[in-house]
Amino acid sequence: MKNALNLEQLQHRIDVSPFNLWFGLRAVEINDEGVVLTLMRRKELIGNPKTGVIHGGLMGCLVDGVCAFSVIARTGQSAATVDFRVDFHRATVAPQLWARGRFLKTGRTLATVEGLVYEEDGTLVASGRAVLLHTKLQTEG
Amino acid sequence: MKNALNLEQLQHRIDVSPFNLWFGLRAVEINDEGVVLTLMRRKELIGNPKTGVIHGGLMGCLVDGVCAFSVIARTGQSAATVDFRVDFHRATVAPQLWARGRFLKTGRTLATVEGLVYEEDGTLVASGRAVLLHTKLQTEG
Amino acid sequence: MKNALNLEQLQHRIDVSPFNLWFGLRAVEINDEGVVLTLMRRKELIGNPKTGVIHGGLMGCLVDGVCAFSVIARTGQSAATVDFRVDFHRATVAPQLWARGRFLKTGRTLATVEGLVYEEDGTLVASGRAVLLHTKLQTEG
Amino acid sequence: MKNALNLEQLQHRIDVSPFNLWFGLRAVEINDEGVVLTLMRRKELIGNPKTGVIHGGLMGCLVDGVCAFSVIARTGQSAATVDFRVDFHRATVAPQLWARGRFLKTGRTLATVEGLVYEEDGTLVASGRAVLLHTKLQTEG
Repeated sequence: MKNALNLEQLQHRIDVSPFNLWFGLRAVEINDEGVVLTLMRRKELIGNPKTGVIHGGLMGCLVDGVCAFSVIARTGQSAATVDFRVDFHRATVAPQLWARGRFLKTGRTLATVEGLVYEEDGTLVASGRAVLLHTKLQTEG
Repeated sequence: MKNALNLEQLQHRIDVSPFNLWFGLRAVEINDEGVVLTLMRRKELIGNPKTGVIHGGLMGCLVDGVCAFSVIARTGQSAATVDFRVDFHRATVAPQLWARGRFLKTGRTLATVEGLVYEEDGTLVASGRAVLLHTKLQTEG
Repeated sequence: MKNALNLEQLQHRIDVSPFNLWFGLRAVEINDEGVVLTLMRRKELIGNPKTGVIHGGLMGCLVDGVCAFSVIARTGQSAATVDFRVDFHRATVAPQLWARGRFLKTGRTLATVEGLVYEEDGTLVASGRAVLLHTKLQTEG
Repeated sequence: MKNALNLEQLQHRIDVSPFNLWFGLRAVEINDEGVVLTLMRRKELIGNPKTGVIHGGLMGCLVDGVCAFSVIARTGQSAATVDFRVDFHRATVAPQLWARGRFLKTGRTLATVEGLVYEEDGTLVASGRAVLLHTKLQTEG
C-alpha cells in the first residue's frame, strides 16, 4: 500500500499537536503495515516514582498514537479514534520504547489497527488496538 | 463499602506520580461507587490545535486514572492495570472535565471498574473500563 | 427517542436468524435507553458441565445481541457490529438471565451501546459494550 | 514452552462442554504459540439468513474459545475468562474457519491471549483478545 506521507511530513503532523510535542513521539519508519514511533523515557512520563515505570495511561497514548498515525500516514488526512484498548504485559524501565502499528482492517470509513510497544531487544511490554474513523466521516457526532 | 483513604490522602497519592502531577488530576469526591476526579483543559493537553480538543490518549489517561484511583481509595494500597478500553462519544472543548469511577466487580484479586467522563452539565464525552489487579497480586509478572 | 419497531416486530427480527432462534432470546421491553431481552438457561448453553454455568462466549452473544437489537429496534434497519467487549463479573446458574441495552452514543453512522446481563434479583453477572455501524454504512468492507 | 495436553486430550476437553460440542470446534494443532481450532459453517450458526454469514457472537465464541483452549492446553487445568474483545474485519461465507491462539503474556495468575480467525486462504475475518485467570485463582469471585 502506498502511504500519502513521508517521514518528515509525519513528524510534522505529530508535532503540530501540543500534547504529542510534549510527549516526545519520534517517527522512525513508515512501511506497508503501518508506522513505527519511538519514545524516550524521561522523568515527566513516570507513573510510579518507586518503580520508575512510564504511566500506564501514557502507554495507552503510545498505542493509540501509533494506530492513529498509521492511518494518517496512509491517507494524509486526519483520523478520529472511535475506541482503543490496551493490554499491559510487562513493567518496563527501558530508556526507549518502540511502538509499531499494523493494519488489521482498512475499510471505506473505518480502520482497525494494532499497536505493539517493545523494548529495544524486542520484548513486548504493552499492546492494543484502535478503531478509527478516517477522513470523510470525521464530522460524525 | 468503606474506603481506606480520605480525599487529602487520595490527592497525595495522585501527586506522588510525576505524570499525574503534570496532568493535573484533582480528587473531588470519594463515595461508595468509586471516586470523582476533575481535570482543567489547558494548552498542553490539546491533541488537535484546530479543534482545541484534549488529546484522545489523555482521555484514556483520565478513564484509566479514575478506575485505578477508585481501587486505590478503597484499598489504600496500589493497583496494577491489566487492561483498559475507552470509547469516544463526543468531541469536547469544555474548560473542565469530571471523571467518575464506578465498580462493576470487586473480586479477591481483580476489580473491574467503569470510568465515565462528563462535561459540567452532565454530557458524557468519553467512557470506558479497566481491569485491575490489586494489592496482593502486584508481583504478577 | 422514538423506536421504529414494536416488541412483536423485534421478536420477529430476532427469530429470522437461525442462531438466535436456537439461542432462545426473548424480547421483553423496548424503551428509550435500548431493549431488554431474556434468556432461559438450558443444557445446550452450558460451558462447564461441573459448574453448570452458561458458556462465556454465549454471555458475549447476549451482550452483543442486546446492543445490536437496541440499534435495530430504534432504526428498524440492520446494524453491523464493528467490535464488542465483555467483562465477566460473577459465575451464575440462574434459570433466567435479563440483558439490558443502553445507548452511550448515537452518531450519524456509529452507535456505542452498553449491554448489561443480570440475574432476576438484579445481580450483575456480565457486561460489555459494542460499537455498531448502522444502516447507510453497512456496505463498509 | 511445553504443553500439558496433546491433541486428543484437548479435543476431549472441548467436547465435555455441551455448548462446545454443539458448536463443533475441532482441535487441529497445539504449538508453542497456542492452539489452532477449526469450525465448519452450518445452518444453525448463521446470524443473517440473507447473507449467510456466521453470527457475530459466535465469532466471539471462536475467539474466546481459541484463547481459553490455548491456556488449557498449556496448563492442563481450567481457565476462567476475565474479559474478551472481538473486532470484525470482513463478512465471510467460507465453509470452514481456522482460529489460531497466540500468547501475548503468560503471568503467574493471568494470561493475555490473541485469537485470530481466518478463512482457508489466510484471509483474516475477525480477531480479538482474552484475559484469563488460570488454575489457582479460579475461585476468584
